[in-house]
Amino acid sequence: MTPDAAERRTILLTVAYDGGLFSGWAIQSNARTVAGELLGAIREIDPTVREVRGASRTDAGVHARGQLAAFDTVKPIPPKGWALGLAAHLPEQIGIRGAAFAPLGCQPRHEAVRKHYRYYVLRDPLRDPFWAGRAWRLSHPLDVDLARREAEALVGTHDFRAFRAAGDERVDTVRSIESVTLTELADDPRVLVIDVVGNAFLYNMVRIIAGTLVDVARGRLEKGAVLRALASKRRDDLGMTAPAHGLVLVAIDHRIPLEDAYP
Amino acid sequence: MTPDAAERRTILLTVAYDGGLFSGWAIQSNARTVAGELLGAIREIDPTVREVRGASRTDAGVHARGQLAAFDTVKPIPPKGWALGLAAHLPEQIGIRGAAFAPLGCQPRHEAVRKHYRYYVLRDPLRDPFWAGRAWRLSHPLDVDLARREAEALVGTHDFRAFRAAGDERVDTVRSIESVTLTELADDPRVLVIDVVGNAFLYNMVRIIAGTLVDVARGRLEKGAVLRALASKRRDDLGMTAPAHGLVLVAIDHRIPLEDAYP
Repeated sequence: MTPDAAERRTILLTVAYDGGLFSGWAIQSNARTVAGELLGAIREIDPTVREVRGASRTDAGVHARGQLAAFDTVKPIPPKGWALGLAAHLPEQIGIRGAAFAPLGCQPRHEAVRKHYRYYVLRDPLRDPFWAGRAWRLSHPLDVDLARREAEALVGTHDFRAFRAAGDERVDTVRSIESVTLTELADDPRVLVIDVVGNAFLYNMVRIIAGTLVDVARGRLEKGAVLRALASKRRDDLGMTAPAHGLVLVAIDHRIPLEDAYP
Repeated sequence: MTPDAAERRTILLTVAYDGGLFSGWAIQSNARTVAGELLGAIREIDPTVREVRGASRTDAGVHARGQLAAFDTVKPIPPKGWALGLAAHLPEQIGIRGAAFAPLGCQPRHEAVRKHYRYYVLRDPLRDPFWAGRAWRLSHPLDVDLARREAEALVGTHDFRAFRAAGDERVDTVRSIESVTLTELADDPRVLVIDVVGNAFLYNMVRIIAGTLVDVARGRLEKGAVLRALASKRRDDLGMTAPAHGLVLVAIDHRIPLEDAYP
């Protein structure tokens, strides 16, 4: 091995996946996970790689277009080589959307400055196989304008303590939400998309936001629920946790200096 | 059994499916097919049903939003009951999109007057799991305007003998194409959709049209190929057969009188 080949470098990948097949992002010993598949593919090329460091631990069923994943390698392969080479070792439900050199040892989850999540709602009384596993299907009519007005109260820096699952034990529950928008897809107006952009999110926070907006829109929850929950900090003041399979991690803005980015 | 319950009636279903999981529409003894799954689900409700009659024999991998399927039943179940009841017995890759009473014994393939197919092309150098199995992915740039001009020659009533796979032995190869349009999805401009509407199609005809337009658009085939093939009637004058997984049978217009249509 030449000294050059033994030099360690860090590769940052942008990863897309259909979460339906996997038990979430994070590696588990007895389940198929995205990070587990990715590490396996990377080790087909460089068996010395020991870990993949993601930016966001997405749950089982949650999809991604812009997950970030870093790993340290001794192989002198340029980012484009990793992006194209990994495809051969990954199932078609996982796609490498980009690759770049990053500073050695970089930890994506410490470098994220803004995340964009999107939640898909399919308004249809009948099952549609093209949206199965990709959207929350609802038969009842939704008052989208009412949900839009409810969403306004989310924007800003607030203590979002009410907006998290029971298992989340973080002490600091203040987060900043930049925007929450509800729009219909131009190509398929049955589909309502809820885009949520913020600096960081508590566990299940986006799914609780989506579930609350839908519950207000279908009349299961009185309007003003968001304001009440921000004041009371009680999970009970909000709506249901929307199902995982409607959620996509769209993009993560970060401050990692990149080199030789592909594409 | 009351005389009423023994009265036979014909149900016409509109069926959507993700073709990726199935060996095409038509029943085969040793393969999982859409008609096979559908017949199995129907027989869970009425074990006396012996056959399902489709309008179009889609190939393995080809999808549908508006396949038509008829069956004869002795069960006094209204169309809405069939539409909702079958869902419980079908995999999520098959969805019943509508149901109605049709004249007894009706044969959908004899009643179709117009079919709309759509072919999806994803222009992206990297794999995208959201379009895997649903679009033909191409890395090279396409001259879409050139393909649009090429498509104009398809419109009208022509002998489309050149536009069929070798296995198609039909004697009458004259078909009428009403329109061929190429547009980009508003929500995802990487995706080019080729919509083809006509009265009927030869075997693989839409996939040969899509492959030919793409081959002209990427410079693999000289423009004028459609006109040359309509004159020569030679398959060799056309482009490749586009892969099955980019094709969707969108809708079939028919002249079947319906009753109690749901939804």
